[in-house]
Amino acid sequence: MAARSIHHVGVAVEDLDEAISTYERLLGAEVDRRETHDEQGVEAASLRVGPGHLELLAALGPDTPVGRFLSRRGPGMHHVAYEVDDLPGELARLEGEGAELIDAAPRAGLFGMQVAFVHPHSAHGVLSELVARG
Amino acid sequence: MAARSIHHVGVAVEDLDEAISTYERLLGAEVDRRETHDEQGVEAASLRVGPGHLELLAALGPDTPVGRFLSRRGPGMHHVAYEVDDLPGELARLEGEGAELIDAAPRAGLFGMQVAFVHPHSAHGVLSELVARG
Repeated sequence: MAARSIHHVGVAVEDLDEAISTYERLLGAEVDRRETHDEQGVEAASLRVGPGHLELLAALGPDTPVGRFLSRRGPGMHHVAYEVDDLPGELARLEGEGAELIDAAPRAGLFGMQVAFVHPHSAHGVLSELVARG
Repeated sequence: MAARSIHHVGVAVEDLDEAISTYERLLGAEVDRRETHDEQGVEAASLRVGPGHLELLAALGPDTPVGRFLSRRGPGMHHVAYEVDDLPGELARLEGEGAELIDAAPRAGLFGMQVAFVHPHSAHGVLSELVARG
C-alpha cells in the first residue's frame, strides 16, 4: 500500500478571487473547480497543475479551521494531500502504526472526494490529508 | 507557458533520519535520492510519490535558510516547487508581470536541477520554486 501521488497542496488565502488571479498568472493554470463547503467553513478553488492540483482555501468566517489558521499564521501552505486507493485500509494501517488521525474514518471532503486528515504531530509539522475518489 | 506539474513539496524537519522513517511509513514511499548541499546549508532526502516527490530538508546549522525557518516556525511545509520547461523564459515572464523573484536567473539546486525561487509575497504566502531538468 502506498500513496499514489501528491493529489494537491492546500493554500490558505485571504482573498480567493485575488489568489486565483495570482496563481493563474504564476502557473499559467486555470481554475478547474470551485466550491463553497459550509460545513467546513471554506470556499475553495482547485487549479489543475499537470496531474496534481493547487487548492486555494478562503475562510467563510474567522471561527473556522482556515480562519483560525489565517489569524494564527497568515496566508500560506495549509496542508498536503495524497491520493490513495483504499482509504479505510490506509487509515487502519496508520492507526496500527500509532499515527494520530484527525479523522478515524473517511468523510466527505471538497469536490466529491472521500478524505481523512492526519495530525501534523505525526507528519513532522505537516497537516496531511489522504484522499480517495468518491 | 505553464507549470507542467507540482514537482515536489519541501518540508523542513529537525531530524532527517527520523523524518525519512516517518514518511516511509506514512506514504509507503522510499527515498529516491539524498544529498548534502553545503552552499545551501541543507541535507535533503527526496521521496518519490507517484509522479512527484516529497523533499525533506534538514539544516546543517542554525544560521542557514532552513535553520532560520525552523527556529522561526518549527518543522513543516517549507516550499512548493513547480516543474517548467523553459526556466529563463518563465522568470522573464514573471518579472514582466511584477512578481518578486528571489533568483532572477536559474541556479544549481538540489539533485542536479536548475531552480529559481519566487518570494512568498508574490504567491499568497507560499515560498515557490520553479525547477527545470539540468
